[in-house]
Amino acid sequence: MSTLREIGEHAALRKILPLLGTHPELRIGAGDDCAVCRLPGTGADQVFTTDPVIENIHFQSLENPMRIGHKAVGRVLSDIAAMGARPQWILVNVVAPPELEIHDLEKMYKGMMDLCNRFGASVIGGDLARGPALELHIFGTGLLPEKSALLRSGANEGDSILVTGPLGCSFESGKHLDFIPRVDEGCFLRESGLVNALMDISDGLATDLRHILQQSGVGAVLDGQAVPKAGTLKQALFDGEDFELLLTAPDPEELRFQWQEKFGTVLPVIGRVTAETGILRLDGQVLEAKAFEHFSPE
Amino acid sequence: MSTLREIGEHAALRKILPLLGTHPELRIGAGDDCAVCRLPGTGADQVFTTDPVIENIHFQSLENPMRIGHKAVGRVLSDIAAMGARPQWILVNVVAPPELEIHDLEKMYKGMMDLCNRFGASVIGGDLARGPALELHIFGTGLLPEKSALLRSGANEGDSILVTGPLGCSFESGKHLDFIPRVDEGCFLRESGLVNALMDISDGLATDLRHILQQSGVGAVLDGQAVPKAGTLKQALFDGEDFELLLTAPDPEELRFQWQEKFGTVLPVIGRVTAETGILRLDGQVLEAKAFEHFSPE
Repeated sequence: MSTLREIGEHAALRKILPLLGTHPELRIGAGDDCAVCRLPGTGADQVFTTDPVIENIHFQSLENPMRIGHKAVGRVLSDIAAMGARPQWILVNVVAPPELEIHDLEKMYKGMMDLCNRFGASVIGGDLARGPALELHIFGTGLLPEKSALLRSGANEGDSILVTGPLGCSFESGKHLDFIPRVDEGCFLRESGLVNALMDISDGLATDLRHILQQSGVGAVLDGQAVPKAGTLKQALFDGEDFELLLTAPDPEELRFQWQEKFGTVLPVIGRVTAETGILRLDGQVLEAKAFEHFSPE
Repeated sequence: MSTLREIGEHAALRKILPLLGTHPELRIGAGDDCAVCRLPGTGADQVFTTDPVIENIHFQSLENPMRIGHKAVGRVLSDIAAMGARPQWILVNVVAPPELEIHDLEKMYKGMMDLCNRFGASVIGGDLARGPALELHIFGTGLLPEKSALLRSGANEGDSILVTGPLGCSFESGKHLDFIPRVDEGCFLRESGLVNALMDISDGLATDLRHILQQSGVGAVLDGQAVPKAGTLKQALFDGEDFELLLTAPDPEELRFQWQEKFGTVLPVIGRVTAETGILRLDGQVLEAKAFEHFSPE
């Protein structure tokens, strides 16, 4: 017998995922940023994701409720963006201690609604229940043309690795609460036809790039100097909650040109996909795994 | 300023719902058992719902994990059944204390999967996070022919009121953990074309029937003797967590005949819809509102 604390969140998920089974209309099950399902007759696929934010883990108890709502929905829209999809429907389960001020609950919804409205998403349901800590559980769906979802498993040897913005210090700077999910960017990347693999960075560049490597059966070298940083290189690699998009592309110059035309910013190349399956190198040195483990002792 | 404890869950929801906005492809927003959305080009509508189960509120800490998983998914499938829809996709957020045994987590998923498999639903994603109490947040979708969803707002004066099974004592008997959601029955009721309003009973017959009355702009008289009971009449009216279906039908005899042919059981008539808007009578006497309020003091 072992507990979540002993084996950690990722090992627990590895035990659960094989139990989940398959379905003829399920294209991509659990393990990417979203699940992808067929919508027969529509020419579209539908993506599904969920994410919780929990008091004293994802935000502090005294945080501004509008920012809590913004972050909660932002994480889900970021997952949808990381498939190249447009957000569609949002449902919200709130768990709250009885002491929560109704005024603060309304502000949380205001934060959620403002961000949904910006990207054409609608909150259509949910639940409100009593519990020991404040939690928001957000469920989201999105749409994209059939078979066009950008997956973690699409990277090929020789692809360049790119990232949509600076990484690190998201907790210190408050970006983890205020970030704008890269929805327009994700759709642009899908429409460009120039991207092989895409995901969002929630656990840190080093950890999340490793997901692409594992699911694509490739390796990578990172150029430490080229990584756009909000602080140190270490912070850029490991802090997490950046909610930037991480991608691989076989023809980065064409993609970067189109990106600059569209968004007026630079899309930096930070490394290259190699044939060294599962090996991540930083400036030549092998970089060992270091994940944020929800259940491991601090 | 007031808190959730002071105003209660239902009053809090009444403040939140008007914030939610609309969407051209949203047929029915928050307020019914599920939201209903168009799926253009398919001839189908898609329904969406979420429900949490929380330790020491919806189940006891030492409960069998398979039953916790069963109940969590069962509640969502019951909401989908209450629209007359077929379940489709399920996503699961688990919040768990670090002390949770992995073996128990696996059993919880086993309970969820067994019930999903029975009704053709698939678990396609979710999340696992640390928190102070064990919680399962289940998000579910379903499908049904467009414009065929059975709503709380469909009851008409003169309709008979019927219920699919005995009510009350669900906590004492363990039915609240073991119930089989009325998915086949919900689809049959929709296909019959003989039902005006449908919902599932989670908060107790008296409370839930009141939702139909409010949303349909009608009243009702209940025949206490005709209500099928697992205990006393009071328990049948107020206990809740029965997860039977409550419906109104203009031609109950034809419906009861078809039901008996299909399921081999009796579908009892327990009352009649009246023109006394918002008034619920039991054997002639007005029955005052008494809802289970998550946040009100016990």
